[in-house]
Amino acid sequence: MQSNIYTDLAREAREINPDLPGVTEQEEKYDDIEISRIEVESISAANTLGKPMGKYVTIDAPRLIERNTDMFKKVSEVLSQEIELLLPEGAAEGGVLVVGLGNRYITPDALGSRVVEKTFVTRHITEHLPDIIGEPMRPVAAVAPGVMGTTGVETEEILRGVVERVKPAAVIAIDALASRRAGRISTTIQLTDTGIHPGSGVGNTGRRSISKDTLGVPVVAIGVPTVVLATTISQDTISLIASETGMHKEEDRMLRLAEQVISEHFGPMIVTPKEIDTIVSDMAGILAKGINLALHRPYFSKVEELMA
Amino acid sequence: MQSNIYTDLAREAREINPDLPGVTEQEEKYDDIEISRIEVESISAANTLGKPMGKYVTIDAPRLIERNTDMFKKVSEVLSQEIELLLPEGAAEGGVLVVGLGNRYITPDALGSRVVEKTFVTRHITEHLPDIIGEPMRPVAAVAPGVMGTTGVETEEILRGVVERVKPAAVIAIDALASRRAGRISTTIQLTDTGIHPGSGVGNTGRRSISKDTLGVPVVAIGVPTVVLATTISQDTISLIASETGMHKEEDRMLRLAEQVISEHFGPMIVTPKEIDTIVSDMAGILAKGINLALHRPYFSKVEELMA
Amino acid sequence: MQSNIYTDLAREAREINPDLPGVTEQEEKYDDIEISRIEVESISAANTLGKPMGKYVTIDAPRLIERNTDMFKKVSEVLSQEIELLLPEGAAEGGVLVVGLGNRYITPDALGSRVVEKTFVTRHITEHLPDIIGEPMRPVAAVAPGVMGTTGVETEEILRGVVERVKPAAVIAIDALASRRAGRISTTIQLTDTGIHPGSGVGNTGRRSISKDTLGVPVVAIGVPTVVLATTISQDTISLIASETGMHKEEDRMLRLAEQVISEHFGPMIVTPKEIDTIVSDMAGILAKGINLALHRPYFSKVEELMA
Amino acid sequence: MQSNIYTDLAREAREINPDLPGVTEQEEKYDDIEISRIEVESISAANTLGKPMGKYVTIDAPRLIERNTDMFKKVSEVLSQEIELLLPEGAAEGGVLVVGLGNRYITPDALGSRVVEKTFVTRHITEHLPDIIGEPMRPVAAVAPGVMGTTGVETEEILRGVVERVKPAAVIAIDALASRRAGRISTTIQLTDTGIHPGSGVGNTGRRSISKDTLGVPVVAIGVPTVVLATTISQDTISLIASETGMHKEEDRMLRLAEQVISEHFGPMIVTPKEIDTIVSDMAGILAKGINLALHRPYFSKVEELMA
Repeated sequence: MQSNIYTDLAREAREINPDLPGVTEQEEKYDDIEISRIEVESISAANTLGKPMGKYVTIDAPRLIERNTDMFKKVSEVLSQEIELLLPEGAAEGGVLVVGLGNRYITPDALGSRVVEKTFVTRHITEHLPDIIGEPMRPVAAVAPGVMGTTGVETEEILRGVVERVKPAAVIAIDALASRRAGRISTTIQLTDTGIHPGSGVGNTGRRSISKDTLGVPVVAIGVPTVVLATTISQDTISLIASETGMHKEEDRMLRLAEQVISEHFGPMIVTPKEIDTIVSDMAGILAKGINLALHRPYFSKVEELMA
Repeated sequence: MQSNIYTDLAREAREINPDLPGVTEQEEKYDDIEISRIEVESISAANTLGKPMGKYVTIDAPRLIERNTDMFKKVSEVLSQEIELLLPEGAAEGGVLVVGLGNRYITPDALGSRVVEKTFVTRHITEHLPDIIGEPMRPVAAVAPGVMGTTGVETEEILRGVVERVKPAAVIAIDALASRRAGRISTTIQLTDTGIHPGSGVGNTGRRSISKDTLGVPVVAIGVPTVVLATTISQDTISLIASETGMHKEEDRMLRLAEQVISEHFGPMIVTPKEIDTIVSDMAGILAKGINLALHRPYFSKVEELMA
Repeated sequence: MQSNIYTDLAREAREINPDLPGVTEQEEKYDDIEISRIEVESISAANTLGKPMGKYVTIDAPRLIERNTDMFKKVSEVLSQEIELLLPEGAAEGGVLVVGLGNRYITPDALGSRVVEKTFVTRHITEHLPDIIGEPMRPVAAVAPGVMGTTGVETEEILRGVVERVKPAAVIAIDALASRRAGRISTTIQLTDTGIHPGSGVGNTGRRSISKDTLGVPVVAIGVPTVVLATTISQDTISLIASETGMHKEEDRMLRLAEQVISEHFGPMIVTPKEIDTIVSDMAGILAKGINLALHRPYFSKVEELMA
Repeated sequence: MQSNIYTDLAREAREINPDLPGVTEQEEKYDDIEISRIEVESISAANTLGKPMGKYVTIDAPRLIERNTDMFKKVSEVLSQEIELLLPEGAAEGGVLVVGLGNRYITPDALGSRVVEKTFVTRHITEHLPDIIGEPMRPVAAVAPGVMGTTGVETEEILRGVVERVKPAAVIAIDALASRRAGRISTTIQLTDTGIHPGSGVGNTGRRSISKDTLGVPVVAIGVPTVVLATTISQDTISLIASETGMHKEEDRMLRLAEQVISEHFGPMIVTPKEIDTIVSDMAGILAKGINLALHRPYFSKVEELMA
């Protein structure tokens, strides 16, 4: 049955396959923020989960729905630390290219380009800035290459060209994701050192991976779920009812039916909450702040020190 | 069970109550466009359907999803004729106020204000224009009053003030709607001479009706579904499976369960298709063109004649 | 010569007529912020300046061009105090209607509607909120009525209708202004208790005043210059050269020429700096913060106290 | 004095140096559209004009300010023909990369990215489409790389990477320009086969050229003036007055003064008309239509034939 239960989140894939060998998971909790660290360690586990071997960090902060400024700050801080852990040694010194994937004109797919807008870009001024405050500024560049449907070019092709020119030590790629639970849409961030892979993401950015294999430099992918498949809601309904009624025998039969009937009825419909404009705006702010902190921490510390 | 099956479309309400006395329905078909004319003729029927007594015209054009320019034009033309049928005698001559309801910063709720942007407004120039082409121009005004959550004022209060000053012969009010089927989101337009009523619309514009009763002039409401409740998808899933499996006995039990379980799980989540930016943009164009044609047909004809 | 030297700023009008009887001016300076308080006390002075009798406060903060967050805060704080001084007794308790004038789709004219977007609106929730923190919340409503060119209705007519319904103790009206010096565009705020008058503002909002005379309640107008007339730049050029060369005799002749020649050449061209998107965004933030502080100070203080 | 009279338009540069050897100009007129074809044929002429050797086509259509749909179409058609004349042989067949330069968040600099939005992109579907209508579709790709200030990377570097991957037969680069006359802002289009050069354009896209020399393929640049320098208005004022008064002796002295005094007073202020939002929107539509026609004419003809 799993074939049809699509999710971009490793944590959700693992929930469906809870006892899979070759996968480890650790959980931490700070106040109201839960951090899960999954490692996919075997090819067989990777195939079953539909997620390449590597590290997957999930930050769950259900209280983000309250839209409280302090919570936004806390999540940005946690995110910045996780980015630093995933970046390869020397990435910050060697320069980072931030890549915002997705289509800026489709609200639930616009997350990547919105983060790029807010990224503190320094690569073109790093020669001049250190003189000012005596603390080296790390070279950061940022591009939002668009999607194949509007550029006519595989996103991976554009990025390969840019990477060959800019020669960053690492890429941070931001993309909107599909989750299995609509409730996760405004509250979850996933980081992974495996990059972005075909079939994942909201906008089907292209047919090829954006990863170390294709770009030649380490790629840390940061994703936030902004959509769910309509069929996910159907499947959840059936599971909920089955577990509630004890109709476990019927569950399988109903799910099999669902697969046929529902996909005929809803087609490949992908849905997003009515409040998606606000959600994308809030999450873009949190991600940009986390990235800016992770990449420029020494500089910001020096500025604060000078201002104190 | 009906209490929980919410829809803003009279046609969907009737599908749930197909043999209700006090309701008449006529259907027509032009090429690929279906027009249904429902009349709710008794208070008891109105109560059962949750729709006030009056006329409801539904234009269904499934081929709108192809985004073909000719289809857009055809639907605008059909819409313009239906608007003319619903407007009271002399409305065009006496002046019309077009009202775009909803929140312009929430994409699925922005339909009304987008239509107002594209409305051909003439009230401030009607004294001068007739001289130019010898054909009287009808006075048309247009406002997008916002929603109570951002203005602090009941939308109906703002409109009453404007109507008292502008004194139009009729109001055309545009709003985004909730339907039971996501498939209707880019393909259906509903017109009604009953106005807009509390609980309807996407953005909960306010607590009071926008209708002849409250504004003192006839109100033609034009709505397009842009959202569905997540629980609607759940309910549809159960019904589909029940009808597919012949588990009709279980259906009632499952639906009752759904009502509890699902609302706990999904809450009042309202969803919209991923492509909502494009859908709202297309539908706003179709509605504005239909309204402009309906209100300025003699003038446009004269212009065409002069240009020929 | 003055007839052609148009400005919306009382301070600039006074610079052109420095020794006019019936006008008083006081200046204060806090750090880098200059506050000028002009009072036009006679009808004859009002006619010469082209500004109705009343109070005009100009806040000049040249360092706003540095886009420093602390400076933004400081100016918001100063603005909030000046608003409180101009509001009539009891306005906050009795309720305030914030009105954003101008056309939201023309960037230099969008200031008013952008401020309304960020206004903390409470009129619809004031019954519930006091219970929560024990401090009364003042009823604030906010509307952005659009301009006559897009609504077909005099803005003053729409506002009269709204005021009659909402019955605020005072109106705060925000508008984009024309100044004589482009340098003022990102650095000056004018407040006045005289309202908004025909011919002023960027978008020619309408032909009628928005003031106590027309709305029946006190109107505090807050304006920020976002445009200059092209002919202003020409006139300044001539004056600068005349004063630099001592060609004062020729100045009058050249200015007279300028009036004919330049208006033929540039027409009624109104220009704005290339960076206007950023400027409007920054100033809308400063104004909204100043207004929110002025109208909700006791409430914010209580919140801070509770959080401490 | 010329050093300070900056313009991106070859036609204006030639007006200032009317009798320069090494420059030829031909003019044509269709109805209300004037086409000037300038060729800069010697290095010495190129240096004096500040324009590289090559072809410069200027389309002047003063009636564009009327915003008439027919005029928009006519200018698009004329533009499409001029693009075809400047493109190298075989460019359409071999594939074209459309490049939208400038900053999409600064309205007067957003022209390039707006054109890219409306470009009919086919490179990713050219394998499939011919089968449908039996007429080959030319491979067209389109990117809007952003500006160095927001990406941290020289625009030319990004484009070199993309060109190396996409391997187009030619590049069409769109940019917003600075003209000497504000009146040209909504009415002029310049095409050139020399590409884009440092110091030109509104947003200072970068420090390096975007031309055959740097990208390795022919570059047709299409530009539309959207800004003027404030000092241009000052200089024009002085020239107008001098020519009007016969004060030619004083003109030089005044212009020299202007250079000092004015630049102190206005700084490097760049201005744009108040209506820039509308202008950029209209011109982006005209340019995109001209480009789409030029690159897909056989295909569009076939479609029309099939529909007839």
